[in-house]
Amino acid sequence: MAEKVIPDIVVARLPIYLRTLQQLKAEGRNITLSQELGEMLGISAAQIRKDLSLFGEFGKQGTGYNISYLIDRLCEILNVGKEWEVAVIGAGDIGSALVSYQGFANRGFRVNMIFDKNPEKIGTKLGGFFVKNSDDLVETIRSSEIKIAMLTVPAENAQEVAEKLVEAGVKAILNYAPIYLKLPSDIRVQYIDPSVHLQHMTYYL
Amino acid sequence: MAEKVIPDIVVARLPIYLRTLQQLKAEGRNITLSQELGEMLGISAAQIRKDLSLFGEFGKQGTGYNISYLIDRLCEILNVGKEWEVAVIGAGDIGSALVSYQGFANRGFRVNMIFDKNPEKIGTKLGGFFVKNSDDLVETIRSSEIKIAMLTVPAENAQEVAEKLVEAGVKAILNYAPIYLKLPSDIRVQYIDPSVHLQHMTYYL
Repeated sequence: MAEKVIPDIVVARLPIYLRTLQQLKAEGRNITLSQELGEMLGISAAQIRKDLSLFGEFGKQGTGYNISYLIDRLCEILNVGKEWEVAVIGAGDIGSALVSYQGFANRGFRVNMIFDKNPEKIGTKLGGFFVKNSDDLVETIRSSEIKIAMLTVPAENAQEVAEKLVEAGVKAILNYAPIYLKLPSDIRVQYIDPSVHLQHMTYYL
Repeated sequence: MAEKVIPDIVVARLPIYLRTLQQLKAEGRNITLSQELGEMLGISAAQIRKDLSLFGEFGKQGTGYNISYLIDRLCEILNVGKEWEVAVIGAGDIGSALVSYQGFANRGFRVNMIFDKNPEKIGTKLGGFFVKNSDDLVETIRSSEIKIAMLTVPAENAQEVAEKLVEAGVKAILNYAPIYLKLPSDIRVQYIDPSVHLQHMTYYL
């Protein structure tokens, strides 16, 4: 693992490099250059080389990166060499989409359970899982290996449910609700926020 | 508007600053410091000051930023002073969630139409919209003001539908399918990719 402190804005780019490399590998490619990655991602080649150099020597000037090797190293750095079990909270549209989402395979994650508080949903089957009762969330997650949850409940309930997740031992929350969560500083929170991505694009329109 | 070229990685942070400022404003706050924003976002205060200084003078050392003023300026910089009409392609779980998503209000976007190719969905009502036929996508979008689309079709159809969107005059695509889109370089593409956010967090676990 890295010995120096890596800036979080660099860490944020590593999964994007990983995704792009996995895409190239799926196309049958073995070698890539920082220039190519840069063009695919809209990031300068120099930035990519600088980011990766923080973690060691991955390629030689001019010969490019070995894609498989770099994928393995990035998986190791990002702690996704193993598969994490993930809980989904909220069995609405987004929750339904997540339990059958194709984009977790080979990326280090597997949905393992889903919760809802609606009595009409509890016990019904969704993407191969029986929907569990949110009232049992703390107990159920605490007695599992789960450290990661995806929060898809309505905005007005998100803070309360997030606090329950923390009580249950969850350390990382991916929040789909359009609300900022106030949680202890050792809890990692990321936001899925389509408006942020749209605004990034409208800058250029 | 900015006269110099702003690095895209800075542009990417502006919507996140804007979201955080809007949150603070909603809490009744008038003034914030780069230190506070930094702590909320896990970005250094120096980085935030540096990013914002690219666009002008927004605050004086020690006195902080006027939140409402900075929100107005960021909306202007990101071109979300007006409201953009957006098309949703795919009336599945994600499409359903997007047509009734609360997080577009006051952020510059309004869903205006939704398409699907499934005859059982076409003509049914979803979040106040009648689902339109994907076969008419090019014609319908071309004769509208729409320049932005959110793509929620299955991965195997995403490239083909994205090309149709480009043909229809769309300039920015928010892609929910777990696949990299190959499109002309003047088309902006952003990805909603939960695995990327999860991997960002597992780095720290």
